[in-house]
Amino acid sequence: MSLLQKTINNIKPASNEAMEKANARLTSLTMPYWALGRIMDLSKRLAGMAGGLSFGVDRKTIVVMAADHGVTAEGVSKYPKDVTAQMVGNFINGGAGVNAIARVSGANVVVVDMGVDADLEAMADGSRFIVKKIRKATSNMAKGPAMSRDEAIACVEAGIEIALALSDKTDVFGTGDMGIGNTTPSSAIVSAITGKSPSNVTGRGTGIDDEQWRQKVSVVEKALEVNKPDSNDGLDILAKVGGFEIGGLAGLILGAASLGKPVVIDGFISTAAALIAMVIKKESADYMIAAHLSVEPGHAVMLEHLGLRAHLDLDMRLGEGSGAALAMCIVEAAHRVLNEVATFDSAGVSKADK
Amino acid sequence: MSLLQKTINNIKPASNEAMEKANARLTSLTMPYWALGRIMDLSKRLAGMAGGLSFGVDRKTIVVMAADHGVTAEGVSKYPKDVTAQMVGNFINGGAGVNAIARVSGANVVVVDMGVDADLEAMADGSRFIVKKIRKATSNMAKGPAMSRDEAIACVEAGIEIALALSDKTDVFGTGDMGIGNTTPSSAIVSAITGKSPSNVTGRGTGIDDEQWRQKVSVVEKALEVNKPDSNDGLDILAKVGGFEIGGLAGLILGAASLGKPVVIDGFISTAAALIAMVIKKESADYMIAAHLSVEPGHAVMLEHLGLRAHLDLDMRLGEGSGAALAMCIVEAAHRVLNEVATFDSAGVSKADK
Repeated sequence: MSLLQKTINNIKPASNEAMEKANARLTSLTMPYWALGRIMDLSKRLAGMAGGLSFGVDRKTIVVMAADHGVTAEGVSKYPKDVTAQMVGNFINGGAGVNAIARVSGANVVVVDMGVDADLEAMADGSRFIVKKIRKATSNMAKGPAMSRDEAIACVEAGIEIALALSDKTDVFGTGDMGIGNTTPSSAIVSAITGKSPSNVTGRGTGIDDEQWRQKVSVVEKALEVNKPDSNDGLDILAKVGGFEIGGLAGLILGAASLGKPVVIDGFISTAAALIAMVIKKESADYMIAAHLSVEPGHAVMLEHLGLRAHLDLDMRLGEGSGAALAMCIVEAAHRVLNEVATFDSAGVSKADK
Repeated sequence: MSLLQKTINNIKPASNEAMEKANARLTSLTMPYWALGRIMDLSKRLAGMAGGLSFGVDRKTIVVMAADHGVTAEGVSKYPKDVTAQMVGNFINGGAGVNAIARVSGANVVVVDMGVDADLEAMADGSRFIVKKIRKATSNMAKGPAMSRDEAIACVEAGIEIALALSDKTDVFGTGDMGIGNTTPSSAIVSAITGKSPSNVTGRGTGIDDEQWRQKVSVVEKALEVNKPDSNDGLDILAKVGGFEIGGLAGLILGAASLGKPVVIDGFISTAAALIAMVIKKESADYMIAAHLSVEPGHAVMLEHLGLRAHLDLDMRLGEGSGAALAMCIVEAAHRVLNEVATFDSAGVSKADK
């Protein structure tokens, strides 16, 4: 059996029994009923993912996957393609936004080259920087499939391998992305899966102007028209209008879910990967935590389709896992509330009159 | 000159020059323009408060002020008054919601008895638990002023003293409250200051039903009618329809502002204190950071009046400083982004094409 099929088979729905146990504990804590709102919703979900109340969240790993995109030939981004490789260097040196924010939540940052258009093998150290390159950039999806179906399977399986390899030192995964041009395939993915029109789910990416935006929308429309992805086949969508880092992240998410571990989904590109993961295996969504609501207009559409609600809304649009790194603080809060707050009985606090 | 007057005189507006310096640095960071959105807005504000780019945010202190309220005689809360003192014990033992969440951001929790209806002096240790009791509970504001003007000054000055005493081990202050019945004076305060009707700014507090809510609204209306607070006189509002912990927190906020240090404002009760502080000295608002948007309907009205936007929206309504403790993570992120992210030049990353 393939690694992908084995992983799919290992993904079980979150445990209702564990969520009920968490619910019983949460309602006995020294505070008015559910007074910590969505933090408590998350405590409960975490218990469901872990299948019980004994689990940790201390070891946090943000996996930032990077790749280049042939579609940049269509002029969809404001930044030159070289920036993808340059930013990989910045991540490794600890100088990017995600690095700074990961220090807040104590998350480890692991960078993966899934398909950067540069020779980065010499920088690989097997722990902070891993090379799983499928190929140097996808093909231009405006003219044909971004990658073959075999390549789609290969990048998803690479992501699963990363999740499994990090498993013994990770309690909570987080996703991050880097890839000049990658909001364009992400818009195509959300359009393919939800049926919304490209103009409703295509945004400004790194900050393009009106004219570039119209061009970007037409590129997304063309990619969907040329390739006709099957909305019920995650691998087909990935192959036709996806990206190597998006496939890698979909694999990471499936891998985390197969391990029964939570995965904090960053912004627009990461959520495109989450959509692919959900189409491949619906129950994987039980293990996803939506970090934040991106400025990209398609992001809210994606989250609604996944049945997730963002935990932060701070006008962020950086990607890199920066939102996931910050939302890790809320995951830790949810864990501490479940485990560390005294009950009315243990603290000798009087309950409500009725 | 009184401590209050001296403190008022020491509060200066945030520095525009420092904010411009921060802006220049933030726009040179290796990311698309302002891609971290409100985190960067906060980085800039923090620089303005500090008057430059050299400042720290590592040492975080949440000050939880507790007091009882004579207005509980009117049946405005679901919980018995004893809970205030019981929860003080819970805070000191580290078992409350705020304690659990403060561990996430590494914040220190200091508890202050401003007017709890119990003899807690024996528990005071001068560092984790401080007694500044004005009196055991306010008078019933539905029948006359909650406290005298001298008592109002005394509780504000007690809060200032706490800020000054904690100053040499605090970079960022946070506010928290405990006091059964204290959403009722908070509703009266926001109504008095903004002119909104009590029914629009009175909520369910710890979870009262429809009938109790109507009773609570009528108590707020009565308190305003009986006392006629002067909307331009913060001390008058505090004396007539406030509370000792609310006055203490207003003082803490003024004290923090006089030191040029940020103060993270928790939920509904803390923001009532922030409104009092702003009426006393408008520029104090420059040092306030709104932690989260409470479920209490009056909270959004308060924040709008203060010109602040909440950083979290997680359906929280606990108080205690729980929201401030979590928002401290965002403050730390803002600081790290300003200080730790590489610039395009230093990291050798290409800029946008135009």
